[in-house]
Amino acid sequence: MSARVRYRGGFRWDGVAVEGYKPEGSHFRDVSRQVLFGGEGPRELRYFEVEPGGWTTLERHQHVHEVMTLRGRGRALVGEEIVELCPYDLVRVPPMTWHQFHAGDDEPLGFLCLVDRERDRPQRPSEAELADLQRNPAVAELIRGRA
Amino acid sequence: MSARVRYRGGFRWDGVAVEGYKPEGSHFRDVSRQVLFGGEGPRELRYFEVEPGGWTTLERHQHVHEVMTLRGRGRALVGEEIVELCPYDLVRVPPMTWHQFHAGDDEPLGFLCLVDRERDRPQRPSEAELADLQRNPAVAELIRGRA
Repeated sequence: MSARVRYRGGFRWDGVAVEGYKPEGSHFRDVSRQVLFGGEGPRELRYFEVEPGGWTTLERHQHVHEVMTLRGRGRALVGEEIVELCPYDLVRVPPMTWHQFHAGDDEPLGFLCLVDRERDRPQRPSEAELADLQRNPAVAELIRGRA
Repeated sequence: MSARVRYRGGFRWDGVAVEGYKPEGSHFRDVSRQVLFGGEGPRELRYFEVEPGGWTTLERHQHVHEVMTLRGRGRALVGEEIVELCPYDLVRVPPMTWHQFHAGDDEPLGFLCLVDRERDRPQRPSEAELADLQRNPAVAELIRGRA
């Protein structure tokens, strides 16, 4: 087996399966996942792609996300902050911080996301937590219909 | 502090220092290092850039390298394998495997490299180990004057 996994173009890699983001749910839209490094060792490096107009689940967890945008543009909610994302921008999601990634309307958003291999399950916001988040008008606007 | 670190262009990031590859030595040439994620948590994500004609140290260690090329072209020695590298190609360097990264003659080679934050010190080859590596003519050619 070669030490190298070749990039095939189009953000696809030889022998790397393009998987669904999560098995089921209506709390995300148009997201795919590819595991680039994982299976052995303490961490996983995944490549996620959010199609134009799509978004990931609004969630939080104890484990940290370390993210590098690779493709396209979009926005991320991290705590109460909304950041614009361009290729090679870095984002760190601290423990127990609400977060969600959104592609632009006309562009996909592709990003690397680094996590512990053994990690806690994500939590979704309760009604009360959602109401709390929505007190910030910019956050309310971003997550409307997407939480 | 923002959750985001902005990419500034030219493979430089806001607030990320461009450091020397190693404090000293003549066993590498024209390599810089930037730590993109580190300081807390169990891992570090670094961006290395090897200038045209440059190379990293020929070494091995117990900790694993997980690499994604981002910029330019080059070659890597991993064990007895020599692989060509293009942007987004992936390379995994297993434990105790000799390895070295080379930029092309006319192009830099920039790559992400993921490691444990706590890791063992690299070993350089002894004369006997070097002679053993050089039994493979392609490897001997690649590392000539660079080991």
